[in-house]
Amino acid sequence: MQRALQLAELGAGRTSPNPLVGAVVLDAGGSLVGEGYHARAGEPHAEVGALAQAGERARGGTLVVTLEPCCHQGRTPPCSQAVIAAGIARVVVAMADPNPQVAGGGLAQLRAAGIEVITGVAEAEARALNRAFIHRISSGRPLGILKWAMGIDGRTALSNGASQWISGPEARAWVHQLRAGCDAVIVGGGTVRADDPLLTSRGQRQPEPLRVVLSRRLELPAAAKLWDQSAAATLVVHGPEAPAAAAAALEKRGVPRLELVGCSPRLLLEALALRGCNQVLWECGPELAAAALAEGCVQELAAVIAPKLMGGQPARTPLGELGFTSMAQVRSWQAQAPRHQGSDLLWQLSSPAELEP
Amino acid sequence: MQRALQLAELGAGRTSPNPLVGAVVLDAGGSLVGEGYHARAGEPHAEVGALAQAGERARGGTLVVTLEPCCHQGRTPPCSQAVIAAGIARVVVAMADPNPQVAGGGLAQLRAAGIEVITGVAEAEARALNRAFIHRISSGRPLGILKWAMGIDGRTALSNGASQWISGPEARAWVHQLRAGCDAVIVGGGTVRADDPLLTSRGQRQPEPLRVVLSRRLELPAAAKLWDQSAAATLVVHGPEAPAAAAAALEKRGVPRLELVGCSPRLLLEALALRGCNQVLWECGPELAAAALAEGCVQELAAVIAPKLMGGQPARTPLGELGFTSMAQVRSWQAQAPRHQGSDLLWQLSSPAELEP
Repeated sequence: MQRALQLAELGAGRTSPNPLVGAVVLDAGGSLVGEGYHARAGEPHAEVGALAQAGERARGGTLVVTLEPCCHQGRTPPCSQAVIAAGIARVVVAMADPNPQVAGGGLAQLRAAGIEVITGVAEAEARALNRAFIHRISSGRPLGILKWAMGIDGRTALSNGASQWISGPEARAWVHQLRAGCDAVIVGGGTVRADDPLLTSRGQRQPEPLRVVLSRRLELPAAAKLWDQSAAATLVVHGPEAPAAAAAALEKRGVPRLELVGCSPRLLLEALALRGCNQVLWECGPELAAAALAEGCVQELAAVIAPKLMGGQPARTPLGELGFTSMAQVRSWQAQAPRHQGSDLLWQLSSPAELEP
Repeated sequence: MQRALQLAELGAGRTSPNPLVGAVVLDAGGSLVGEGYHARAGEPHAEVGALAQAGERARGGTLVVTLEPCCHQGRTPPCSQAVIAAGIARVVVAMADPNPQVAGGGLAQLRAAGIEVITGVAEAEARALNRAFIHRISSGRPLGILKWAMGIDGRTALSNGASQWISGPEARAWVHQLRAGCDAVIVGGGTVRADDPLLTSRGQRQPEPLRVVLSRRLELPAAAKLWDQSAAATLVVHGPEAPAAAAAALEKRGVPRLELVGCSPRLLLEALALRGCNQVLWECGPELAAAALAEGCVQELAAVIAPKLMGGQPARTPLGELGFTSMAQVRSWQAQAPRHQGSDLLWQLSSPAELEP
């Protein structure tokens, strides 16, 4: 199963809306005769690849797979039928598929065909690996990660708005990696105006994550790096209150736009889930970040902390108002061990369970 | 020398205005025959204690000491004469005494008496141990440490001012320890009004560090924990602009006060150096912290970071305006490895060399 989990991870950042899946086939004598992983949505599932590699040696053998084999016809045929056809005698899976189109149906088909099925092996690791997929299936919205870089005094910009660069090259390279694991990167109009960011993974993910600008009234600059879509696609999302002229100007620039019935983080994530996003990265300013948190659209934090004192009472901070009136209301997030990225500190946290939808 | 350094540390927090000093005596055959350290200002120096323990066995032996023996009459007689009188043949010291009343004079007296003198052994460790003393001798001001506790989003209070408690019990206990190593703890009037703090080491240091309130115009609450001086002494420091009635009210409450010609962090630290402080802790709000930084009164930072999102655009942050207009002006501080204190993170940093006076 450890090998199957390693294989699954090879697809990271490219399988959405599908989960990451890895599989190995052992022959009747216990020798490894096939390996496979799901490399990209629309391409063969992990089990199919592993079974194809094993060929006739799969007969009477064992399939070890990180997720329950599917039993429905999607872009590829159901895997449960392929497993049965290959003559596999035993299937070991880490976790059932939370997708309601599967949800135990695949395992039931295998059992009905006389195959021995063992479940729950390394389930915690498998769930952690596919936490974004599981979150999207159960909530209808992609998993949200909120990332910011700040000085040790909690500032994300100087008083005059200057913020390039707070963190060093190692931390910035890590952020490119983080983007490569996400299906979309979201900012608000204010970040486009203030920072004119590029928001790509610098080629680490192909295609690049979708760059999303959430802007209620389309108050956006005429020139911005995001409008050049040769490096990566951009989608501007706005509310019904946006003036028609601003929408027309965007269209003239060739920038796709999407009008929502209301310009909220939650409606945006629902729209992105429909476009196949499992995981998104919020790289926005304090007000949009606070709104995303308030609407349950952030499950993980990644704070890059530079050993710098920036100062400035009017200077930008990571978060706007959250509405707390007593420290007793403020919950602790679950923290990972901090890591150095060059001279900066990276601290990643997960939301306390009670914030989960 | 490692043993002498360990002994020196036993006096931490109690020797000011003197340095920390440890000493061991080896007899002519190299056996350890005496140990001593400087336990408190006014009490015997480390060398005297170690020589007394060794007695006649010191004759022809070696004295290992973390700092050059003094050669001047202070509250205790000069140590150089005691070393010579004991018949020591060889003296090994980590560093010369930066005090201009000594500054090599002690070593010269030893050499003149025919004693072999070896210097510079473990000098870096000895300088780190006495960095506060060295800073005070060279600058005329105690070493300043700026400490704050904040949420991971850089807030030191909620929008309504609530801040108890941001950090957990382990981090708060660490702060008590930090105070125990300091001669004074400094806040501004705003912190007294907002938080009504106690500012003691909870008995870890006896006497407790002096609690200092810097308040230009003595706009202070009538009731505050700091006015009760049964647990620890308080000193209120103000400028000439403070109304006489406010000064009289303080006196009536029995709170000592000190009027400075100007109410600045630098003048305050000069006054505290004259009162024998080697090391002070700034536990103040953002404006005083920014002023202390701007005047070169902060050499070390201790940031306690809680895994909590506090939010609030008007909420308090660690630092006021520092006047930077470009990220190129912002220097990186020298960071230690972060440490967990319970669920909180503690990150300690030292000032970049160019900020030193």
